[in-house]
Amino acid sequence: MYKCSLDRMSDKINTFAKYGDAGHGGITRYSLSPEAHQARDEFVKRMKAIGATIETDDLANMYATLPGTEPNAKRIVMASHVDSVRNGGNYDGILGVMVGMEVLETVAAENIPHKHPLTAMIWTNEEGSLYPPAMMSSGVVCNDYLPEAIGKKFKLENMLASKSVLDKTTTFGDALNASPYKGDKKNRLNADEYMAMFELHIEQGPILEDAGNEIGVVTCVLGMFNYRIRFYGQSDHAGTTPMHKRQDALFAAAKALCYMHEEIDKLGRPELVYTTGEIVCHPCVHTVIPDLIDFSIDVRHEDPAVRQQVLDIVKSLDGKVIERCRGEVELAWQRDTVYFDKELVEFVKQSADELGFKNQYIPSGAGHDAQFASYMMPTTMIFVPSKDGHSHCEPEFTTPEECTAGASVMLNAVLKADKK
Amino acid sequence: MYKCSLDRMSDKINTFAKYGDAGHGGITRYSLSPEAHQARDEFVKRMKAIGATIETDDLANMYATLPGTEPNAKRIVMASHVDSVRNGGNYDGILGVMVGMEVLETVAAENIPHKHPLTAMIWTNEEGSLYPPAMMSSGVVCNDYLPEAIGKKFKLENMLASKSVLDKTTTFGDALNASPYKGDKKNRLNADEYMAMFELHIEQGPILEDAGNEIGVVTCVLGMFNYRIRFYGQSDHAGTTPMHKRQDALFAAAKALCYMHEEIDKLGRPELVYTTGEIVCHPCVHTVIPDLIDFSIDVRHEDPAVRQQVLDIVKSLDGKVIERCRGEVELAWQRDTVYFDKELVEFVKQSADELGFKNQYIPSGAGHDAQFASYMMPTTMIFVPSKDGHSHCEPEFTTPEECTAGASVMLNAVLKADKK
Repeated sequence: MYKCSLDRMSDKINTFAKYGDAGHGGITRYSLSPEAHQARDEFVKRMKAIGATIETDDLANMYATLPGTEPNAKRIVMASHVDSVRNGGNYDGILGVMVGMEVLETVAAENIPHKHPLTAMIWTNEEGSLYPPAMMSSGVVCNDYLPEAIGKKFKLENMLASKSVLDKTTTFGDALNASPYKGDKKNRLNADEYMAMFELHIEQGPILEDAGNEIGVVTCVLGMFNYRIRFYGQSDHAGTTPMHKRQDALFAAAKALCYMHEEIDKLGRPELVYTTGEIVCHPCVHTVIPDLIDFSIDVRHEDPAVRQQVLDIVKSLDGKVIERCRGEVELAWQRDTVYFDKELVEFVKQSADELGFKNQYIPSGAGHDAQFASYMMPTTMIFVPSKDGHSHCEPEFTTPEECTAGASVMLNAVLKADKK
Repeated sequence: MYKCSLDRMSDKINTFAKYGDAGHGGITRYSLSPEAHQARDEFVKRMKAIGATIETDDLANMYATLPGTEPNAKRIVMASHVDSVRNGGNYDGILGVMVGMEVLETVAAENIPHKHPLTAMIWTNEEGSLYPPAMMSSGVVCNDYLPEAIGKKFKLENMLASKSVLDKTTTFGDALNASPYKGDKKNRLNADEYMAMFELHIEQGPILEDAGNEIGVVTCVLGMFNYRIRFYGQSDHAGTTPMHKRQDALFAAAKALCYMHEEIDKLGRPELVYTTGEIVCHPCVHTVIPDLIDFSIDVRHEDPAVRQQVLDIVKSLDGKVIERCRGEVELAWQRDTVYFDKELVEFVKQSADELGFKNQYIPSGAGHDAQFASYMMPTTMIFVPSKDGHSHCEPEFTTPEECTAGASVMLNAVLKADKK
């Protein structure tokens, strides 16, 4: 078994944490921002130092490749992203890039024989924090392989027109054109030249930590659905409208929300997750009774039958009248569970076992570029623990030892794939 | 008993409804906008036609005065506003101005003898829709008489600096300087030159309509308090955080809101009104558990003991932990019940009775300029019915007959005050 270097991994973690440092333990590193370009420059510098070839494609996705010994063998790619959410942490995305680099550095330093070219890759704009949506580049690159409804959302022309959420003017296309890393479409990840993709990521939840495990062997990305639930009331004056005549959409929505929690909890599925993260109120004035509340519900579970049970509860609100307000339920989007390549999953499992790392099978509740890539080629993921389960925030933390363990599992799983 | 003219009243209603017509039955007529200036021009035209003297003060409040027969007698003023909320109706504010005009027109047309000068007045920026806060000019003009906490909020320099909610740049001071109706500070409403103020307004609630009454004899403006209630959670990932570990601030707030309704309803006070009109969510992303919900509660009742009972329920949420989220309760502002001048209230009551209009005593749940004026001089209000209780919206409606009935009550009540 080969092992990666704790010192080299720690040095990378400390170095990349500077690019976009927000001054209180985390980073803000929007895709294609100056800070993200600093991180890309560092990637180039370190990859050139070990003799890797650097390529970029038309979406500024970056590829650093060490050649293999077998002529014409397809590449194996380890890919993640360097961009972050606003006031995010030092691990989401960038850890997967650093692990790809670490694997190549270990292969180069120890002269590890391999037939296939090995590539460390950066996906552009995975978070979609500045230019929505998330997983933008993998959505474009894998577009021809995606289910139709998803593929339609990620058409290149729509993505290039996506506007900055900050200035509402600059488009993703503008940012790409201004980037020194915009390259050639022919360099895109593709099924002819690549045989497999691996992505290491922090778990972003507390499951590995709570179980005392060091490695998550990811089996799938959970199927999910996202609905909007609305209640329509009547906006009357706060001081002049008797309570018994009110059509208060916020009170109706609060009752509906409590009702849904009660009903969904009755299903007795502790592994089910559901979230009402967004709520919009109209007119949202303290002296006016709200006439519209619109909130989101995001529901995730591997089993479509369980998702259907939840959907039945959500849909029971459609047309329901609560506090004289009418409910309405509308599908925003949904996706089936995406299963990773069984053989690659087992390569990860075997590597973790052989290295002696405590591990478990785990689904991914979050979406990742790997999920789109899996429609194009055999793909899988590796998780490492997130302290207290936090992510997309500054307290996000994974120990250097856990990061290095993840890199070692990646290295050995890639070498198993290389031997196929 | 004198009576006002249904024809003349109807003509004014139809004419003023054009200024700011939003094309679907209502108006948008922000204070000092071109549309509001059209309404002011119409006011000037009609008041000059009956020989009234026009004055304006430094806040562009407008005064049209017919002289009385007694030299040096103080003026009696009938005041309201011409500005509206966005997509408001054709009655809120403007009806009070039209009634003031109608009273003067009736006095002029019928040569009704009166000792005191009679003034129809327009308050600038009552709604505060474009330049917050509401009741801005009466807050400035009556400032020296207001309770300290309220007076502090309405200091002239702060009001002049209030920025447009639309362009976030133009100040109320800029708008005033651009108005042809900005005049001299010496013309402001004051206690030396004015003996009483009357304000007619639509009820903005369904009480008169439900009781089959044509006139509301307003006794007071309800005391109220406004609090912010916050719940602090933890923003974790929607897909990766098990339900039993979540600190979901929205779920906590929804439970708190339902709890408050239950507890307040137990007080058994059908005349009590309370409203949670505004809700803010952070980060408000459908894939993230909310870590902060901040909502308003506005509570109104005449009796301070009843308000205190509600406040005890609201305050019980301070420090309370619901769904692992901590509650916090903070006072935004409060005011005591403001009672109108007993003698003027009885003049209104007697006039309505003598004219044969079905009437009742009624508190005002909404705030009005009259409430600030009442700290400076004897003041009272007259209500007319609001169809279905709607206001601050396009379906706002009061029949021409009801409007004219209100004007006739105003005329006779003013004449009773004139005879004092």
